[in-house]
Amino acid sequence: MGDQIGTAVEGALYHVGVEEIARVRGLDLGPEAGARLFADLCRINALYMIGRAGSGHIGSSFSAMDIVAWLYLHELGPGDTYFSSKGHDCPGLYSVLIAMGVLPEDALHTLRRLDGLPGHPDVRTPGIAVNSGSLGMGVSKAKGMIGARQLKGEGGRVFVLTGDGELQEGQIWESLGSAARASMGELTVIVDHNKYQSDLSVEATADLGDLEAKFQSFGWRVARIDGHDPGALAGCFAELAKVTDRPKAVVADTVKGKGVSFMEHTRLRSRDAFYRYHSGAPAAEDYRRAVQELLDRVNKGLEAAGAAPLALETPPPAEAAAAGGDNLQKLVPAYGEALLRAAEANPAIVALDADLVLDTGLIPFKERFPDRFIECGIAEQDMVSQAGGFALSGLLPVVHSFACFLTTRPNEQIYNNATERTKVIYAGSLAGLIPAGPGHSHQSLRDIALLGAVPGLVLVSPACEAEVDALVDYAVNGTGESVYLRLESVPCAVPFALPGDHRPVEGRGYILHEGGDAAVFAYGPVMASQCVLAARALTGKGLGLRVVDLPWLNRIDADWLGRAVAGVRAVFTVDNHYVAGGQGAMIAAALAAAGAAVPVHRLGVTDVPACGRTEEVLEFHGLDARSLARTIENRTPGA
Amino acid sequence: MGDQIGTAVEGALYHVGVEEIARVRGLDLGPEAGARLFADLCRINALYMIGRAGSGHIGSSFSAMDIVAWLYLHELGPGDTYFSSKGHDCPGLYSVLIAMGVLPEDALHTLRRLDGLPGHPDVRTPGIAVNSGSLGMGVSKAKGMIGARQLKGEGGRVFVLTGDGELQEGQIWESLGSAARASMGELTVIVDHNKYQSDLSVEATADLGDLEAKFQSFGWRVARIDGHDPGALAGCFAELAKVTDRPKAVVADTVKGKGVSFMEHTRLRSRDAFYRYHSGAPAAEDYRRAVQELLDRVNKGLEAAGAAPLALETPPPAEAAAAGGDNLQKLVPAYGEALLRAAEANPAIVALDADLVLDTGLIPFKERFPDRFIECGIAEQDMVSQAGGFALSGLLPVVHSFACFLTTRPNEQIYNNATERTKVIYAGSLAGLIPAGPGHSHQSLRDIALLGAVPGLVLVSPACEAEVDALVDYAVNGTGESVYLRLESVPCAVPFALPGDHRPVEGRGYILHEGGDAAVFAYGPVMASQCVLAARALTGKGLGLRVVDLPWLNRIDADWLGRAVAGVRAVFTVDNHYVAGGQGAMIAAALAAAGAAVPVHRLGVTDVPACGRTEEVLEFHGLDARSLARTIENRTPGA
Repeated sequence: MGDQIGTAVEGALYHVGVEEIARVRGLDLGPEAGARLFADLCRINALYMIGRAGSGHIGSSFSAMDIVAWLYLHELGPGDTYFSSKGHDCPGLYSVLIAMGVLPEDALHTLRRLDGLPGHPDVRTPGIAVNSGSLGMGVSKAKGMIGARQLKGEGGRVFVLTGDGELQEGQIWESLGSAARASMGELTVIVDHNKYQSDLSVEATADLGDLEAKFQSFGWRVARIDGHDPGALAGCFAELAKVTDRPKAVVADTVKGKGVSFMEHTRLRSRDAFYRYHSGAPAAEDYRRAVQELLDRVNKGLEAAGAAPLALETPPPAEAAAAGGDNLQKLVPAYGEALLRAAEANPAIVALDADLVLDTGLIPFKERFPDRFIECGIAEQDMVSQAGGFALSGLLPVVHSFACFLTTRPNEQIYNNATERTKVIYAGSLAGLIPAGPGHSHQSLRDIALLGAVPGLVLVSPACEAEVDALVDYAVNGTGESVYLRLESVPCAVPFALPGDHRPVEGRGYILHEGGDAAVFAYGPVMASQCVLAARALTGKGLGLRVVDLPWLNRIDADWLGRAVAGVRAVFTVDNHYVAGGQGAMIAAALAAAGAAVPVHRLGVTDVPACGRTEEVLEFHGLDARSLARTIENRTPGA
Repeated sequence: MGDQIGTAVEGALYHVGVEEIARVRGLDLGPEAGARLFADLCRINALYMIGRAGSGHIGSSFSAMDIVAWLYLHELGPGDTYFSSKGHDCPGLYSVLIAMGVLPEDALHTLRRLDGLPGHPDVRTPGIAVNSGSLGMGVSKAKGMIGARQLKGEGGRVFVLTGDGELQEGQIWESLGSAARASMGELTVIVDHNKYQSDLSVEATADLGDLEAKFQSFGWRVARIDGHDPGALAGCFAELAKVTDRPKAVVADTVKGKGVSFMEHTRLRSRDAFYRYHSGAPAAEDYRRAVQELLDRVNKGLEAAGAAPLALETPPPAEAAAAGGDNLQKLVPAYGEALLRAAEANPAIVALDADLVLDTGLIPFKERFPDRFIECGIAEQDMVSQAGGFALSGLLPVVHSFACFLTTRPNEQIYNNATERTKVIYAGSLAGLIPAGPGHSHQSLRDIALLGAVPGLVLVSPACEAEVDALVDYAVNGTGESVYLRLESVPCAVPFALPGDHRPVEGRGYILHEGGDAAVFAYGPVMASQCVLAARALTGKGLGLRVVDLPWLNRIDADWLGRAVAGVRAVFTVDNHYVAGGQGAMIAAALAAAGAAVPVHRLGVTDVPACGRTEEVLEFHGLDARSLARTIENRTPGA
């Protein structure tokens, strides 16, 4: 039932039980004050989930909270659907769904854990209508739902929340016109206009201009309100309910991080300052201060209503996730430094970014070469074709985003650049299965397949910081071809080191661990490490496993490969990628071309990846060192 | 020098030589009348190129002609760049470039031929600034060019022509904002607003609404003019030259097919009528009438100027392209009929299209089930996510476009749908190397790689009409997974037939030709045919080649495969696709997994594909029957 806690303690985590939420909802506060209090209870729980998970999006969970709370408390009826198109505000949504009884209370403790609540929405979670997390798809999805309902003779409205940064995605503007032409009065889009996107303010990134005029020019009815004012929300939705002949957009002015004063974006000194609470868990002291502020405001509201103070629950802390270790490799900062060095030497280099400057290692470059840095906003197609224009004009563009977005959204644009035979470097971070907390929208497991067939594009994946340096040098100076740099972002303690003078040779790998019974090929720090650990374990069982770091994903030196597998009785490939279209397919095909009689077993991901902690997700997919060792032992003849 | 021809003769082709163009340009007609006359000369030459090639885009070559002519005659200065973002108007542009001496006169005869002028623009052609043909990239490319020039301290303006249907692409709207924020006065976009897109009117497809308001809402200066009035063009460009603090959009009202009365869209009875001259060569009598009308108007202008009538050249006709043959298979119409049958039986089927109803076989469906047909316009991302919404709501969406666009532009949206584990059918037509006339923007050679790793998505490629029927039935009724139907559009005379009762079994193929020395795997009518022809030729040389039609692109039955290659001394795979990521990689990997000692040679496309006629392009890539036979003979041990 929880305890009445006056002062939050650093290091502890606090949440509100559903019975306590029910008590507060039962108070006679009136709809507006009631909704405010309810939203703050949900903020406490969202903060708890993020604190416990160790990551998650506070800023937009809080900016959208008053809107989401009002919708669920007072607006949504039977047959109505709400979902978030941006999706990363899901800790906020989950907390509302728990409070409303749609999700079980226990779900509070499972954010970003295996079989728990995923880091971005998934329809397998009760109450979640669509998978989101990759931006810009929501209006289109809603139109399909409404079209289907019309065909089936069903009613019901659809409310879609979008971000404001999300409006930079072209798909949003593709999707608006037909909703107006089809007179879709069932559709309401609410823009959580919280002014800040991943890195900086929307204004400093890719200012939206006159947002109301834009929606109107596409034939939509537009309203603009304070998204934290329940009375304004009530009035707006009542007014818009009367509009049935066209889709409706509500531009809701909100504050990123709303509800905890020091997390609110309005506290930032300038629009060019980084907002610190977009993603990631707060430090312990920040967490304590935030809970205290929310608690104090809730208790003030309860006191005014003559009700007892809030009872909070403070469970024992979850076991900490494994982290740290020796020889911790951080590829993204190493990449940023290597790019900076290359750019000092080569004035033709320009860097393009899609609102992920913090996550792609670009801050040193941006500060050193502001004129050669192009912030494109969340507009990957535009970014890649701009890079094409730079390349046609004799410069060397380096294009950045998360691998999951960079290799999909502008895929045709990358191919178009390739057919012009110019040189462009693409750097995709957050590649691979790990971190697995953000969920499948962010786990880039198809990028090798997606870019591997582009002519004149070399795909490389460094396994450690030293290899990052060498491969950035290769990309800039060592080849006339375009290059895709596949960067695993998670800091990873690796049980190997490359020699100081190591220089990668195109199509060839480096032996990390010797062994004569079987050979395994891997790339990137996560899988190379698991393979080396597996090899050590197998040595103890008398099975010699040769571990090869092969950073080349679509180039192979057939002669070298023949030597690399000489004498072994089985070959394994471990893709930090779907097995289909991964590096393993290239290795297997190269061995097949040579008519090698050794069996080649391809390991990797074979279905939509799990969300969770590193160790549990690696094990789930059979890709942790122990599982790998078992598989290799079972499938090596005579082992 | 050409002859003065009063009456054009049916069956002959006519063009204007550059000396004759120079004579006309030397007349003292004044800029406006001179430009009109020049444009008509270029229309004659564009029509010639298309007539000779047997295909090409008349409608937009003609609608844009007066704009392009004016730009090259009077507006573009040193350092200025013009290009077409839509690109399919290139016969018109080529004719202007030839008239201006940028391209050699001989190029007139080489449209859509190997080493000639490609069906869509390519930078290897003099005077062509960017590769286009896939829509929506032009504004972004121009921004990159301007950014590069600014960094290099160079000047020069960039003029980009877009279509009006092209404005349905989201990338256009992604690209507008930053040009305004960067105050890119160097950039002028001209919308060739010819009111008709590929199939129907823009209004009937995906009406653009208030286009001026839209551009203005993104911060652009907008002008609107008659795009066929040289005086209006002159005044507009003079006025806009004064605007240097923002990008400029010219909405040019034009007529599709302008200049030949019966080709003008304004002659159509309604906005729902199909426009016949979007692509494809005119029939001989249409060609004769068109030339006659252009010739009469030119001569009238020359007579008024007191000049001699126009001299036309009429070269001997080019050798006709090989066509026809026995057992001609037309997969797209067969698909349309099969889908219609399936939809009669299954009311959950809805069809979505992206402005290619003529090219995807959907006309019967659209006419029979207008309520279950959703025209999305050229907005593939929106289309695929709408399909996701339909699928989440219990319907079975079938999504259509050209394979080159369907598998790239909405690639992340297809994956997002797959992660929701709903069932969606994707049908991509125009797949593969052939027809090779449209050029690399339209030759879909990466689609297997692009979709092969999507979990729960089965890729199939039928080799004949009978297999289309069977695989549509499989897609709708035979599997719970999503399916990608890869349809080669070119009518193909196939030298094989499947038994009437043939039913494809997942992962297994069908032997089209028996042989015991080597085995070759193929799919689709074009390559399956070449392989059977190669096998027949090799039989005469004493080499038995087993030809297997394997319609499954990412599913393989390993046991069946082992039997299919039993006894042969070499295995070949022939991909109508890049070798990287094609079916061959799957087959090779499956044989490698079994430790088969037989060598597997993967054939297919290995570099940006050539543009040209079927026979010359197949030979160029070593994929015609003769080349295949030679390769197979050379690489089969003991042959």
